[in-house]
Amino acid sequence: MNILVALDSNYIHPLKVMLKSLFLNNPGEHFRIYLMQSTIPERQLEDLSRFVAEDGQELEIVKMEQDLFCDAPVILHYTREMYYRLLAYKILPADITRILYLDPDILAINPVRELYETDLEGYLFAAAYHDVLPNRELNKIRLKSPEMKAYYNSGVLLMNLDLQRKEICEQMVFDFVEKNRVKLIMPDQDIINALYGSKIKTLDEKRYNYDARYYYYYKITTNGMCDMDYIIRNTVLLHFCGKKKPWNKNYGGKFHSLYKHYEKIADCPVNGYGTGSEKLWKQEK
Amino acid sequence: MNILVALDSNYIHPLKVMLKSLFLNNPGEHFRIYLMQSTIPERQLEDLSRFVAEDGQELEIVKMEQDLFCDAPVILHYTREMYYRLLAYKILPADITRILYLDPDILAINPVRELYETDLEGYLFAAAYHDVLPNRELNKIRLKSPEMKAYYNSGVLLMNLDLQRKEICEQMVFDFVEKNRVKLIMPDQDIINALYGSKIKTLDEKRYNYDARYYYYYKITTNGMCDMDYIIRNTVLLHFCGKKKPWNKNYGGKFHSLYKHYEKIADCPVNGYGTGSEKLWKQEK
Repeated sequence: MNILVALDSNYIHPLKVMLKSLFLNNPGEHFRIYLMQSTIPERQLEDLSRFVAEDGQELEIVKMEQDLFCDAPVILHYTREMYYRLLAYKILPADITRILYLDPDILAINPVRELYETDLEGYLFAAAYHDVLPNRELNKIRLKSPEMKAYYNSGVLLMNLDLQRKEICEQMVFDFVEKNRVKLIMPDQDIINALYGSKIKTLDEKRYNYDARYYYYYKITTNGMCDMDYIIRNTVLLHFCGKKKPWNKNYGGKFHSLYKHYEKIADCPVNGYGTGSEKLWKQEK
Repeated sequence: MNILVALDSNYIHPLKVMLKSLFLNNPGEHFRIYLMQSTIPERQLEDLSRFVAEDGQELEIVKMEQDLFCDAPVILHYTREMYYRLLAYKILPADITRILYLDPDILAINPVRELYETDLEGYLFAAAYHDVLPNRELNKIRLKSPEMKAYYNSGVLLMNLDLQRKEICEQMVFDFVEKNRVKLIMPDQDIINALYGSKIKTLDEKRYNYDARYYYYYKITTNGMCDMDYIIRNTVLLHFCGKKKPWNKNYGGKFHSLYKHYEKIADCPVNGYGTGSEKLWKQEK
């Protein structure tokens, strides 16, 4: 399976946790991880390659040149990296027909094969929208787009690269950004929703993009069906959306202990997990 | 390492979760699990033996005869099983010198070797007490025992069987129960504390008997040191004390997601965990 990630040095740590959870919960699967980046130091990339290879998986570093998308408008504090996800079809090898983009603030706690094999006939993407908040209506008004049925979250994005190569036009994207500069809050997500909303196949958010902030909301709105049991056994991608991240101090969400569990496994070298070392981790830091 | 458990059919499920966590987090270790029981049906015992054997470990069923401890006083709704833990030294093979008793409502999330090898010179037991609550003072008054420095929790009990064979006297235990009937709330724990309190070596509760109900209390009283990171990396035994249990509906503690994670692994057959089956667990039930 092809997995796409796009990030800078600041997200290497959560990326490792995400990948470790993906590998552990998909035994027997082979993953080729495409990492789009432009600024990560060589030493960190080598370390990441080793990390991925330890689980028998592959890492492909996709170096994005500085002059890429140089005609593209840049807004606020966002860099050109905001275009990576949307224009990946231009950069990735031509023989790849499908790829699953994943944000690094995700845990993959069940097998992803069923998601990966979603029928994308006629769709550019498959994604889930978070029906949790008044966000949806707000975003409709803000982006005023007839294409927009719902405001999809772009943290999990299954991509139909073949169709994208035919239908997505770089210049149209740049024109849209130019015209809507002031209105764009999360530029890449906004663009995908405004321009391609009708070409996105809707995924079940409870299974493929569960927003870890809203445990009680999901539980109540499903009459208790979507409880902790359901999530642990059926949710594939647990997404730690929002500003508070589980790898930072003072996080306190429902999945805190589970995240830290995977973080420990990701941090320790292969046989270091469970060695009975007398040194405590805190003392080593 | 020798592990002792004592329970009835109602606790087979959490026992499996506890054992699975113990096996997973102690790679390379060999465990012999002694299960003291009198009423568990043969079919369940066979299933449990298979479960333990799948991880290359051993289960020894210790059948407790009905007439065992028939001279012992029985109080309230407690059965004679309350004596199993205390009088295990009489029942277990004479060549075992040390055993670690564990309640089934525990997760073992780090290696237990260091705990198992605690120097027990001169002590009958090693255990931790929960310094969290006014319990300690209350129990001192209730049990009025000069032996009692602290009220130890008997859910994790490292036993010096050699010394117990010399120093613990069955009749003394029965006499104490007879005399204190009305005052005993948790009979086995009360007995151990009142009669043998001064012969218990104190273990660090944060590492060896962390009470999962009191996350914030532990964190605050250690100036933030005992946070989720510390626990996941250093705590060995996470104890789900109290009436609300993580395998029951409507549990909602800090370690809910972590418990459910281990529960899932324990429930699925060896290669069933992560097979990508299209059937959802809830539908199968």
